[in-house]
Amino acid sequence: MIQTVKWENSCICILDQRRLPTEKKWLVCRTLQDVITAIREMAIRGAPAIGVAAAMGLALGAQSIKTEKYGTFRRRFMQMAQQMKSARPTAANLKWAIGRMITAVERMDNNTVEEIKEVVRRESQIMLERDIETNLKISHNGLELIPDRATILTHCNAGALATCGYGTALGVIRAAHEAGKDIRVIVDETRPLLQGMRLTAFELIEDDIPVTVIVDSAAGYLMRKKVIDLIITGADRIASNGDVANKIGSYQVAVIAKENKIPFYVASPLSTFDLDLKNGDLVPIEEREPGEVISLAGHLLGPKGVNAFNPAFDVTPARYISAIITERGVLKSPYTRSIRNLFKTKDDRGQSR
Amino acid sequence: MIQTVKWENSCICILDQRRLPTEKKWLVCRTLQDVITAIREMAIRGAPAIGVAAAMGLALGAQSIKTEKYGTFRRRFMQMAQQMKSARPTAANLKWAIGRMITAVERMDNNTVEEIKEVVRRESQIMLERDIETNLKISHNGLELIPDRATILTHCNAGALATCGYGTALGVIRAAHEAGKDIRVIVDETRPLLQGMRLTAFELIEDDIPVTVIVDSAAGYLMRKKVIDLIITGADRIASNGDVANKIGSYQVAVIAKENKIPFYVASPLSTFDLDLKNGDLVPIEEREPGEVISLAGHLLGPKGVNAFNPAFDVTPARYISAIITERGVLKSPYTRSIRNLFKTKDDRGQSR
Repeated sequence: MIQTVKWENSCICILDQRRLPTEKKWLVCRTLQDVITAIREMAIRGAPAIGVAAAMGLALGAQSIKTEKYGTFRRRFMQMAQQMKSARPTAANLKWAIGRMITAVERMDNNTVEEIKEVVRRESQIMLERDIETNLKISHNGLELIPDRATILTHCNAGALATCGYGTALGVIRAAHEAGKDIRVIVDETRPLLQGMRLTAFELIEDDIPVTVIVDSAAGYLMRKKVIDLIITGADRIASNGDVANKIGSYQVAVIAKENKIPFYVASPLSTFDLDLKNGDLVPIEEREPGEVISLAGHLLGPKGVNAFNPAFDVTPARYISAIITERGVLKSPYTRSIRNLFKTKDDRGQSR
Repeated sequence: MIQTVKWENSCICILDQRRLPTEKKWLVCRTLQDVITAIREMAIRGAPAIGVAAAMGLALGAQSIKTEKYGTFRRRFMQMAQQMKSARPTAANLKWAIGRMITAVERMDNNTVEEIKEVVRRESQIMLERDIETNLKISHNGLELIPDRATILTHCNAGALATCGYGTALGVIRAAHEAGKDIRVIVDETRPLLQGMRLTAFELIEDDIPVTVIVDSAAGYLMRKKVIDLIITGADRIASNGDVANKIGSYQVAVIAKENKIPFYVASPLSTFDLDLKNGDLVPIEEREPGEVISLAGHLLGPKGVNAFNPAFDVTPARYISAIITERGVLKSPYTRSIRNLFKTKDDRGQSR
């Protein structure tokens, strides 16, 4: 199984996804700042993977705090949490993972700093393992939505590479293939950073699942031609009303799907839900460098002086979403109610120990 | 004014748009086959430009026919027309231009071959000049649809570079700017060949019209944010019911526009209409090489063995189109009627001498 992030002695190794599929190279992070940079520059990406990497980064940072006093440790740790929070703004999992780590530290005000350091490191490893379990549950829960024979469109990468393993949207696809269903995948290349072309196609080829890449503009053509049976994507943040922030372009895909009566599913762990947000319009949308759009592999694609606007995510209103597949079941509209009911059944987001 | 194609002595010079905006290089075509290759490989592209280049290519081919007998000349010319027709399948203007040249030859069955050769060459030059006049009329007619202050989205390139000068969709934008309106343009980069990024941005920067490039996936985001006031594109073929075939991705843009109550206009000469087609589903859609999607500037973008599907156009049903701007006025829904009425008013497509 593809791994994206791991502890290696006192370092965190991150599979550098900017180089995939050409090179498989591990980036060795020795400090909190190394991990923040890796997240910001998208060596690791995908909301669930970002969450776990952030937790591991904080645990790494914690090891470097030189004090034996709880108060000092906690203050320094909170500063680190604040720094980590600024790495990228959109994925809910970043906020969620940082919150979990802070809670862990706050519960241990009677422990020694050495003990706390050990616990936060262990906690981050548990989060990594739980993420994989969660994905397997999501994938199993999604199976009921996949016909025995289906051509599935996905956008960006919500695969093993967006998580700690197996994937969410791609997890459902993988599980359907493993269950013997006849699955073909069409993937949007996903400009500007081509996660669909570079990462999703790579994962599917490795798993011998038939995959065809299209430009993002061709998805509508294939939907209108009735080539696509259903769509599954991941999510970066889900508001309490079911609005979904995901990779730029997801909104367009969802609208065109609805227009063509094709189901549009979102596969996502509970850690991606942000119940503090009434709706998706409140999700902070990251705007990245124009250079990601106007240059590729060192080539300027447009004329000298060309300007670009580069929002990394968009919001799909809940009314375009046919179902949200989580580790605790499949949510249907009306989402405000189904999400509230889901979170009522346990205290936290389903990952309490 | 940017030129795309011109006679130079006994050759046709084509501005090689594959190299723009980096290099401005003229491709010298000495034979019919040179022109067919230039069209097929998209050194020249855009439905109106393709039409004129095809007419000029046939006139060039005609010069090489070695006979003094009308029957022999006509047979050989018809073979050439057949070859030219196969250059690219979607643009109506190719068929239209070839039809005009055939008509010219058929009318001259009492002339010498030398006379016919001279007339077809002159005819192709007239078509070039008429194309520019047509664009100026389209642009003037479109002015009424453009508010005094507007952010306009366009897709691909329907500019001077898609025609013999001034442009259709970009002509309307240019005319609005020249009329003193406060115009900002947002252009989809238009994968795979990046005509929006390379050509439209280039034309607008040259004309000092503010332009921002976005990835094709970001158009919906900006529409939902109410940043875009209206959309104008060109067309490659328009069926008798108003369905429009245009660059892949246009359909998506039009659907999202309708969903967000943003007008979606098409600017196009009458030579792009194909009254033989009842609706857009009958338009032949060109499928180009996967290599255009999976490689860029010699780099393989995806994993080894990756497969791609590369349709070059899609069809936007008439119900998504707010108006079609032609040289003879602005057409509104119901299009079957407004198109029929428009073509009733003259015998041919408005270019009869």
